[in-house]
Amino acid sequence: MKLRELAERLQCRLEGDGELDITRVAGIEHAQPGDLTFVANPRYQGFLDTTRASAVLVTPDVPAKADGPALLRCAHPYLAFAQALGFLANASAPAPGIDPTSVVALDATIGSDVSIGALAIVGARARIGARTIVHPGAIVGAGAVIGDDCVIHARVSIRERVQIGSRVIVQDGAVIGSDGFGFVRQPDGSHLKIPQHADVVIEDDVEIGANTTIDRPAVGETRVRRGAKIDNLVQVGHGVSIGERTLFAAQVGIAGSTVVEDDVVLAGQVGVAGHIRIGKGVVATAQTGIPNSVEPGLMISGYPAIPNRDWLKSSAVFRNLPALKKRVVELEQRIAELEEKLNACLRSEG
Amino acid sequence: MKLRELAERLQCRLEGDGELDITRVAGIEHAQPGDLTFVANPRYQGFLDTTRASAVLVTPDVPAKADGPALLRCAHPYLAFAQALGFLANASAPAPGIDPTSVVALDATIGSDVSIGALAIVGARARIGARTIVHPGAIVGAGAVIGDDCVIHARVSIRERVQIGSRVIVQDGAVIGSDGFGFVRQPDGSHLKIPQHADVVIEDDVEIGANTTIDRPAVGETRVRRGAKIDNLVQVGHGVSIGERTLFAAQVGIAGSTVVEDDVVLAGQVGVAGHIRIGKGVVATAQTGIPNSVEPGLMISGYPAIPNRDWLKSSAVFRNLPALKKRVVELEQRIAELEEKLNACLRSEG
Amino acid sequence: MKLRELAERLQCRLEGDGELDITRVAGIEHAQPGDLTFVANPRYQGFLDTTRASAVLVTPDVPAKADGPALLRCAHPYLAFAQALGFLANASAPAPGIDPTSVVALDATIGSDVSIGALAIVGARARIGARTIVHPGAIVGAGAVIGDDCVIHARVSIRERVQIGSRVIVQDGAVIGSDGFGFVRQPDGSHLKIPQHADVVIEDDVEIGANTTIDRPAVGETRVRRGAKIDNLVQVGHGVSIGERTLFAAQVGIAGSTVVEDDVVLAGQVGVAGHIRIGKGVVATAQTGIPNSVEPGLMISGYPAIPNRDWLKSSAVFRNLPALKKRVVELEQRIAELEEKLNACLRSEG
Repeated sequence: MKLRELAERLQCRLEGDGELDITRVAGIEHAQPGDLTFVANPRYQGFLDTTRASAVLVTPDVPAKADGPALLRCAHPYLAFAQALGFLANASAPAPGIDPTSVVALDATIGSDVSIGALAIVGARARIGARTIVHPGAIVGAGAVIGDDCVIHARVSIRERVQIGSRVIVQDGAVIGSDGFGFVRQPDGSHLKIPQHADVVIEDDVEIGANTTIDRPAVGETRVRRGAKIDNLVQVGHGVSIGERTLFAAQVGIAGSTVVEDDVVLAGQVGVAGHIRIGKGVVATAQTGIPNSVEPGLMISGYPAIPNRDWLKSSAVFRNLPALKKRVVELEQRIAELEEKLNACLRSEG
Repeated sequence: MKLRELAERLQCRLEGDGELDITRVAGIEHAQPGDLTFVANPRYQGFLDTTRASAVLVTPDVPAKADGPALLRCAHPYLAFAQALGFLANASAPAPGIDPTSVVALDATIGSDVSIGALAIVGARARIGARTIVHPGAIVGAGAVIGDDCVIHARVSIRERVQIGSRVIVQDGAVIGSDGFGFVRQPDGSHLKIPQHADVVIEDDVEIGANTTIDRPAVGETRVRRGAKIDNLVQVGHGVSIGERTLFAAQVGIAGSTVVEDDVVLAGQVGVAGHIRIGKGVVATAQTGIPNSVEPGLMISGYPAIPNRDWLKSSAVFRNLPALKKRVVELEQRIAELEEKLNACLRSEG
Repeated sequence: MKLRELAERLQCRLEGDGELDITRVAGIEHAQPGDLTFVANPRYQGFLDTTRASAVLVTPDVPAKADGPALLRCAHPYLAFAQALGFLANASAPAPGIDPTSVVALDATIGSDVSIGALAIVGARARIGARTIVHPGAIVGAGAVIGDDCVIHARVSIRERVQIGSRVIVQDGAVIGSDGFGFVRQPDGSHLKIPQHADVVIEDDVEIGANTTIDRPAVGETRVRRGAKIDNLVQVGHGVSIGERTLFAAQVGIAGSTVVEDDVVLAGQVGVAGHIRIGKGVVATAQTGIPNSVEPGLMISGYPAIPNRDWLKSSAVFRNLPALKKRVVELEQRIAELEEKLNACLRSEG
């Protein structure tokens, strides 16, 4: 694509040769001639002198260089970079159509320009919206509903009656609507399964990672709200509610019936207990364990979770605990000596 | 279903209109007319005044209300609730029969009234017991044996020669019988794979969660005993033995050759080292890391795991470690002053 | 197999009856007549007196027993044991050939003696090397390249354009090449997906565990280097580089753009932050959380990770923190008494 055209599509101001051919997007350290790259962080401005990229997305305040690469100026270079990747990356959506090896129920409803891949399965009464792509080997259960413009990657399981909004992306191997982990202990000590047949709702613009699992509850619903992004190998328990625009990194686990409010960010391997509420905008650093409800806006760490600032300070003391203990032992010795001296002194006076 | 019939099937005493139509089971806060709900915990008795449910499962001692919902009295309301879900939930098992798109080996043995879904695969010499359901896309490997009344959900991998009992449920995407993680370091530093071809045995009444993995060993066996319930994304290493009625929450990991005795409960994200023994009835709270064998009956927490009571107390001190350190520093200052004063005093006397 | 033949193939010195029939390999405690077992650890030498095995692999220095089992002597009995498992274990590779129910693109390139299982899918322009086995239900995406002598187990997803070397083993349900977790926050607070279409390279002799996920990046590549072994349910983020001969136990997670150098060992459930470097030969014990880069050769533990030796000492103090706090409180009381006494003493002198 000509740099001039790219600048127009990204709504950037062009400084340089608009006739340059841009064929790829790359990181600034690895970029080659023909590549577009970006500087979003002032720390990386130094690379402008050395990058081999043909063009760089920068903010309006970055000084121009003679003999430097062409510049595309805009308020949010990283956002423009993401958009440029969409234009230039080596992506290829499958063509619309229903693969003859797929198994689509006669009473399923398939929207216009849908693509259903090889050996994919669409169950009875399922409905799939316009332009949605169901990749090879994916399974859409009986009565499930998927909106428009979704991408269901290979080998995904969407269980019966699950409801999925529009523009949802589900990566390979994810399972949506598996049975929640619910049992009741019987008098003989064995566990009776509580049937789990209630609803799972995935709202618009959600992304769900590879091999992630989202359970359905016995009653009520499990719901992932609009714009939430969930990474790989995450567990969402039955009856959980995930707020809008939440971000869950890989291997996060949320136990049953918990409410995660909007704009929460959970880093990798965070665990959240069941039946609690994580307030709006809470941020938990990696591996945090959250046993109780958390007030909105807090940044938390550790297990059990405490405010991040406190945890950092306590962790700094933790690594020197043996030294602290030694200081206490020394104090005990010094004080014993003092006590002895003072008592001797008092006795001698008495 | 008429409330009278439901009462009979649940063996509950009915107080109220037996002609009521009950169509759904719901939680007490969300129940609507036509719903059955329950109160198992005295804390929820207050909802009896406000619930819109038509009928409520309660213990014999709960006082009746004029104008309240109909009551179904029994010793274990939560157990009855679980049973009612089985009668009323929106569940539908696939009809028996072998889908024409499935791939079933000619020498496989298929029991009576088995259901084999679309694009499922049953390998050579595999045996599947009566009334078992193999959902679409599931794979039963060569020589694997599955008992009666099992439910193998979509896209499960049951590897070659794995043995599964009766009434076992396996959620979507689980893998049973993958190769254990066993290597021997060669003189040049590289890792030689130790072939992992021995047995995996899943006994009766086990449930295995979505995308959970259970490895096979090189020699001996991996065994999950009767009535164990394993949640999603759990790792069971090669040669592990899981006791009867154990409960593993999501994302638990058990390293190779470990023995988990009966009635152990491991909460979410717990990790257990290899070659150790977890005694009968041990309970580990979420994220506990267990590096060594544990005596029966203990409740443990933390990493490395210690008794839960100690861990709670230590954690309470942990969050105030900076304050504790400050107190030690102050003590050091005070004692230095005291030493100086006392020495000055002693000198002046001398 | 005759013991004599086994000894020759394992290049061991035989002491005993070479005509013995060996049919199985077993652990020394469970071995039966007809079994071969091994003693690699001197602690197990005592079992030589009691084992029922017909033959035992031992080092040259182990004393022979009259009436004991036959001995196979070699420098590395455990290595020989692993090799013997390869000869004797109950393994059976599928025959070469393309199953008629598989879906192989007309323009895919399939090497000699390849096996493609039932309902497996090989996409457009994909290339599969000689003698590679693609098990049932596995999916090889468009343009993906797989080398010689690989084993791709059932229901694996190898996404479009992923490159895999030779002798690579991928266990069931693993996903290679899923989209990295990359978003840019837009002015309205929502997250715009950064398209993730760049490369994933898996080098020779790598093993990847069941339901493990390896993401592709937006730019650059994700690379797993020669001889790395990755267990089940591991997350490898986008743009990560995994060094040669690294070992990752189950449920490890590596966040994006991190470099793990050669010969690193991460035990189960270890988490590694993004954009950092783990030096050559680092060992992290189970559940370690690594927020910052680590110098080569360190053994680390805890979260945040510190040297293992320090962590063990600090953990020992941690479990007695309440007692330590009590000692500080007692010191404060004793010092207050001392101060009072001394002041009284000084006053009386004054």
